[in-house]
Amino acid sequence: MYSYLFFILYLLKFVSADTNEIVYQTKYFDAPLDHFNFRVTDTFKLRYLINDTYWRPHDGAPIFFYTGNEGDIHMFANNTGFVWETAPQFHALIVFAEHRYYGESMPFGNLSFTDPKYSGYLSSQQALADFVSLIKYLKDSYKVPFNRNPVIAFGGSYGGMLSAWMRMKYPSVIQGALASSAPIWQFTGMVPCDAFNRVTSSAYTTESVQCAVSIKKSWGYFDQLGSSDDGLKWLTDTFKLCSPLKDVKELKDWLNEVFVNLAMTNYPYPTDFLATLPANPVKAACKHLMNSNVKREQLLNNLFSAISIYFNGTGSAHCLDLNKSADDGLGTLGWDFQSCTEMVMPMCDSGTTDMFEKSDWNIKEVSDECFKKFKVRPDPGLAELEYGGKNIHWATNIIFSNGLLDPWSSGGVLKNMSSSAVAVVIPESAHHLDLRFTNEADPISVRRARKFYKKTFLAWIKQHNEQRLY
Amino acid sequence: MYSYLFFILYLLKFVSADTNEIVYQTKYFDAPLDHFNFRVTDTFKLRYLINDTYWRPHDGAPIFFYTGNEGDIHMFANNTGFVWETAPQFHALIVFAEHRYYGESMPFGNLSFTDPKYSGYLSSQQALADFVSLIKYLKDSYKVPFNRNPVIAFGGSYGGMLSAWMRMKYPSVIQGALASSAPIWQFTGMVPCDAFNRVTSSAYTTESVQCAVSIKKSWGYFDQLGSSDDGLKWLTDTFKLCSPLKDVKELKDWLNEVFVNLAMTNYPYPTDFLATLPANPVKAACKHLMNSNVKREQLLNNLFSAISIYFNGTGSAHCLDLNKSADDGLGTLGWDFQSCTEMVMPMCDSGTTDMFEKSDWNIKEVSDECFKKFKVRPDPGLAELEYGGKNIHWATNIIFSNGLLDPWSSGGVLKNMSSSAVAVVIPESAHHLDLRFTNEADPISVRRARKFYKKTFLAWIKQHNEQRLY
Repeated sequence: MYSYLFFILYLLKFVSADTNEIVYQTKYFDAPLDHFNFRVTDTFKLRYLINDTYWRPHDGAPIFFYTGNEGDIHMFANNTGFVWETAPQFHALIVFAEHRYYGESMPFGNLSFTDPKYSGYLSSQQALADFVSLIKYLKDSYKVPFNRNPVIAFGGSYGGMLSAWMRMKYPSVIQGALASSAPIWQFTGMVPCDAFNRVTSSAYTTESVQCAVSIKKSWGYFDQLGSSDDGLKWLTDTFKLCSPLKDVKELKDWLNEVFVNLAMTNYPYPTDFLATLPANPVKAACKHLMNSNVKREQLLNNLFSAISIYFNGTGSAHCLDLNKSADDGLGTLGWDFQSCTEMVMPMCDSGTTDMFEKSDWNIKEVSDECFKKFKVRPDPGLAELEYGGKNIHWATNIIFSNGLLDPWSSGGVLKNMSSSAVAVVIPESAHHLDLRFTNEADPISVRRARKFYKKTFLAWIKQHNEQRLY
Repeated sequence: MYSYLFFILYLLKFVSADTNEIVYQTKYFDAPLDHFNFRVTDTFKLRYLINDTYWRPHDGAPIFFYTGNEGDIHMFANNTGFVWETAPQFHALIVFAEHRYYGESMPFGNLSFTDPKYSGYLSSQQALADFVSLIKYLKDSYKVPFNRNPVIAFGGSYGGMLSAWMRMKYPSVIQGALASSAPIWQFTGMVPCDAFNRVTSSAYTTESVQCAVSIKKSWGYFDQLGSSDDGLKWLTDTFKLCSPLKDVKELKDWLNEVFVNLAMTNYPYPTDFLATLPANPVKAACKHLMNSNVKREQLLNNLFSAISIYFNGTGSAHCLDLNKSADDGLGTLGWDFQSCTEMVMPMCDSGTTDMFEKSDWNIKEVSDECFKKFKVRPDPGLAELEYGGKNIHWATNIIFSNGLLDPWSSGGVLKNMSSSAVAVVIPESAHHLDLRFTNEADPISVRRARKFYKKTFLAWIKQHNEQRLY
């Protein structure tokens, strides 16, 4: 009891940590392949990164647990500085757990996506259960009673969805969750399907209406040039494509994704998350697109200059490879599969209220594509049944943070759900900027948010200890 | 809005229902075989009983949903009169859903328990997901929006565990749960393993200390007689066994189960639940055991008279069949399997503080038995990780009711967990007496409890509507 009180008082002093220090051991855990089934008892190697140098397990100090999302776990560890710089203040154990079927955590190696008999074990529920098992395993390894040390879940984007859902589904295991830029409502019937593109566009119009108009105009120009061999050749040369363009849609799709990614990673300082980028990349791109009243070829030349900051931020790219995903660090195959099963996020475009082309959401087409690719079909209602959709007023101890510059805020929780499941809206933030290392370029809103998070963590830890002793 | 207000006012008048009326249609639902896996898309027929004659779906009236437990669903429908007599007052839809792998809801027919590749899909999580799917399916069938009509879950015993867990895991689907006699803490490390037998014994000592002493003495007498052929022959004759007794342990195990079942079904009026029984069956049995200071043969003769009320309540049994389970209506194979996987409930006996013989809980032995029988091994920690164990102060909208005469109250929640996850302790009640039809012999504590339940349902419904409109 007493040692506890001292510990809490000690925490309040917030010792300062070395900045930008990311040190960890890489370990592997034998995770059950299927948590909800007694048919198979197989396990697979789930990778996790761990740093216990700050941890005071026997004082009841917390575990900071990052619920890994759709990619190599190093990518998230390297872009979630807030965990690294806050853990020492809380004497916390740091764990970054990889999501099954991403990075090195492939249950069936190269076969993992070849057939549903291998890929079928990829689901958010199984991933959450992996994390629960890992927490149990770690507490056992460190010989601390299971209910002793509170666990705080962290996650950004899909990882944030997982951390929020983990608190919802396993509130005895997870004391609270910081779910940053987590679009838990980007599902059928919860938000309009064109909201995402509207918010993306607003990140550009905020910089310059001319910029958004230039992009909007380009789509028609691409179609014009794409209709002739000469035009395709011109596009191949102008955009320095690695291989000759056959179908202009390929280039348009790639650009579409780049515009979204630029908005997501529109951070106020140079970063290296989805790509190597300068500070304020949307502004940097738009600098080339300040005049839409130029001739077709000029506008497309300007567009190439604009997107060059994305594909060639290092200056080392010799050509633009459309086959290379615009966000290559992510496990696109895994996410495609998840989008084809439970993570069915309708996206469409009005074609009028934003800078993109009109497009519809056609679940039938999506479903057929999915079956062709993975032999599975999407279940658009699954996430709502499993995680409650918009009816989550019962939720507790979750911070839903969203940046209004972030396209994904369209599917985020922007108002309080209960007295302790609260929304933090950060006008000047892009995709989970709040989870990154402190930077002098951070807007004041992000600094304030982080202060609030730390205060909230203390409250969660206090509550955990009170209830544990009750 | 307005129609709603009227509806609530109307409810408060509590129209009186016809008593003891159980009318339903039997239907089948195609439930996914595996809810957490995209490997298989097979379904199986899940049986449910439904009565929609009282329901006013478009006024937002609730669904009363019984989360079926380890047996034929008719058995629970017939012994849960409270649902039938309360539903008309609430204009509620009545649904009794069968638990997978019980009754007719066998995913693989006769093969269901022959190998883990068939039996492996039997788990509480899969069962809860079945119930969620069924609720979704029913709401779609009746063309009511999914979030419109609140669902209140009911369950007794394991069924009560499921209804509590359903509220914990799917609070968006289930607005509240009445979990009667639900031993959600009868797991490793949560309650002492001898508590169950202590409470059982107290149901006997409450009637008469002599009765408990007689039973306690009998075990040694059985052993004495069991050690010789003459003794075994004497026991076979005296207990009117259908086939000659080879091992006295068989008879003792059977008696042990009968003493537990008598305590569980110690209702104040004649019933027909686990067996056909007179009112206050423990008293009726103990009537024959009021003097423990009699000779060995006399005491055992008395014991046979005592337990005759259980195995031969109808007067039609010609002999006592030890191979017939003492609670034949339950799906013992299914429950054995569940006890061998996740429902691992340690039971032991001090041999001093109660009327039973000393016995230990040996997980290794249990595990080996399980592997021999089902090719699976128990995971004693699973239920705690999945459902929170004793750390459930975050739970909301659950009534945990327990009768102190009920052996299972040893593993029940006897104190409030939060302001809306509350405990109702009924001193004079056996196993889920509160869920039965109103009877003039009901103790006042049970009547009061039922009044409280109905008031609470109204509060849950009101909350549901407020949050739905928010």
